[in-house]
Amino acid sequence: MKIAVDAMGGDYAPKEVVEGIELARDAYADVEFQLFGQTDQIKKYLKNDDRIQIVQADEVIEMGDEPVKAVRTKKQSSIVLAATAVKEGTADAFFSAGNTGAILAAGLFIVGRIKGIDRPGLTTTLPVIGVKNQDKFVMIDVGANADTKVLNIYQYALMGKYYAQNVNQVENPRIGLLNNGTEADKGDMNHRKVHDLLAADKDINFVGNVESRELLNGAADVVVTDGFTGNAVLKSIEGTALSMLSLIKTTIMDSGTKAKFGALMLKDAFHKIGGSMDYSQYGGAVLLGVKAPVVKTHGSSKADTVKNTIGQIRQIIASNMIPDLNQYVVDHNDELQQIKDSIKSSK
Amino acid sequence: MKIAVDAMGGDYAPKEVVEGIELARDAYADVEFQLFGQTDQIKKYLKNDDRIQIVQADEVIEMGDEPVKAVRTKKQSSIVLAATAVKEGTADAFFSAGNTGAILAAGLFIVGRIKGIDRPGLTTTLPVIGVKNQDKFVMIDVGANADTKVLNIYQYALMGKYYAQNVNQVENPRIGLLNNGTEADKGDMNHRKVHDLLAADKDINFVGNVESRELLNGAADVVVTDGFTGNAVLKSIEGTALSMLSLIKTTIMDSGTKAKFGALMLKDAFHKIGGSMDYSQYGGAVLLGVKAPVVKTHGSSKADTVKNTIGQIRQIIASNMIPDLNQYVVDHNDELQQIKDSIKSSK
Repeated sequence: MKIAVDAMGGDYAPKEVVEGIELARDAYADVEFQLFGQTDQIKKYLKNDDRIQIVQADEVIEMGDEPVKAVRTKKQSSIVLAATAVKEGTADAFFSAGNTGAILAAGLFIVGRIKGIDRPGLTTTLPVIGVKNQDKFVMIDVGANADTKVLNIYQYALMGKYYAQNVNQVENPRIGLLNNGTEADKGDMNHRKVHDLLAADKDINFVGNVESRELLNGAADVVVTDGFTGNAVLKSIEGTALSMLSLIKTTIMDSGTKAKFGALMLKDAFHKIGGSMDYSQYGGAVLLGVKAPVVKTHGSSKADTVKNTIGQIRQIIASNMIPDLNQYVVDHNDELQQIKDSIKSSK
Repeated sequence: MKIAVDAMGGDYAPKEVVEGIELARDAYADVEFQLFGQTDQIKKYLKNDDRIQIVQADEVIEMGDEPVKAVRTKKQSSIVLAATAVKEGTADAFFSAGNTGAILAAGLFIVGRIKGIDRPGLTTTLPVIGVKNQDKFVMIDVGANADTKVLNIYQYALMGKYYAQNVNQVENPRIGLLNNGTEADKGDMNHRKVHDLLAADKDINFVGNVESRELLNGAADVVVTDGFTGNAVLKSIEGTALSMLSLIKTTIMDSGTKAKFGALMLKDAFHKIGGSMDYSQYGGAVLLGVKAPVVKTHGSSKADTVKNTIGQIRQIIASNMIPDLNQYVVDHNDELQQIKDSIKSSK
């Protein structure tokens, strides 16, 4: 398999991206890479070009660029060229740590939607804490769409199911709808409609509404929500975890010698705690609902996160997730059309 | 001042409620109490009835009762009778640790809205970590309304401003709109409308869009959002903080003698950390936009939280917050009407 990489995206590009790709190349013998970017800059960091091809990109989409406009106008940018390579089939997946909006736009407009999926959704895998038999869950959408309809959230459940099954290898994943209470009638009219659609779907193992307080406790294997709420919840979890860690640090620093000595003895434990909350270990955010893997990592990603994310992309391809999802949508075209009509008529 | 207390609400009622009220009575010489509930049960725990009057309530609204229906039908319940005492002016505020929906319904339908405020919003005060000159912020709405309009969020900013000013004593509080990015054009159309309304309002110290990742870092003194997102964010912060604390505990327990010994030395530090994240220290959730303080604490509240919450209610009354807010709405009736019209016409 071949992965098209935006070598210029992210705060530490191209250095950390190139180093991460070399780590991945050494870890995964079956993966080839195309690095899109400024050839001279990439060569500065590339030690060994075995299974790594450099493709010159004259332009770069900056973090500050207006995403859709940038993708339309910067035709020679590393993002557009990498996404185009996937569209044309010379690469199997697209990876970038760059401008999120531009990556989503490139996925949507260049790689293209799976026929039957109305809106792709962005997925992140998050840790589950202190639960036997579950160490992570998937949340979708975490920000691809700020304005989400009933049909979109219903389709997120289908996509999330295939991701949890094929990539996270969860058998018959439990799907939960993020809501402001567990009762079936919680939330606004749209949430009640989504709840009833999922409850009625025999192909979905729906566990009902889940509250954000219970996500890290393993309330579900797949949590579906609109992109606005999902984004807010994801960033709340991130921010709170970071605040707790800094709170621990400062509290210990202000607590005198005994505490400092105690902290020394806990060094390994604290390291483990940081690791458990670091969800970059699960790779990046995946745009589900497009024809090939489009995966985005934090702009602050270092080489090891890049490598983890390549491992994740490799798993998506090897697991046949996207063809399987595609086949399901084709086989169930009539049911999915009936659901669309039922939503329209209920308006 | 006199506070009407639902003595039967909460997991540990009436015991912890009664004990908390006695603590508050002893702490605040200027506060009197009316305890609504089953007289015989209350008397079991009441040591000294100085400034505490018991009012018999034959019915109890259970946690599982359908809120609006319960408030309409259980006329002799402690919640309805306590709220009615406030409506009739025999008490100045209403406190309960019971059924949240029923408390909100009693506030809305019995105590009543401030004229000019279209929808009351539920407010919670949360901690800010590791920032000089800011130890907390206010979020509104955290769940009174699952279906929120532009006008409501705009009015939350006004209410939140008065709460931060009068109760948290923040001068010229910074108001932020919770959004999925800091740029002015983030979010859906409604968020852009709210953003522009707040930016144009000379009486609001608007700091723009804030992301949930930055809330505990003190992004604003008042964070306004729709009740659905606010509820999800609040519960994400709670859940993540709890998961982190349990993660620390289990990691240490699995880390052998050295770590356990280190943890012993850190006991005080950990205690302090738990305290910093425990926002019950700031009291309960306040329904803003009604004619008198209507305050709700966690169903799991113990006596000390009940006491803290009474201190908070005392501050709301003493600070004149509600009359001040009311006066502002009266004085700016024309501007507020213009804003309503502008929202309607922009549809």
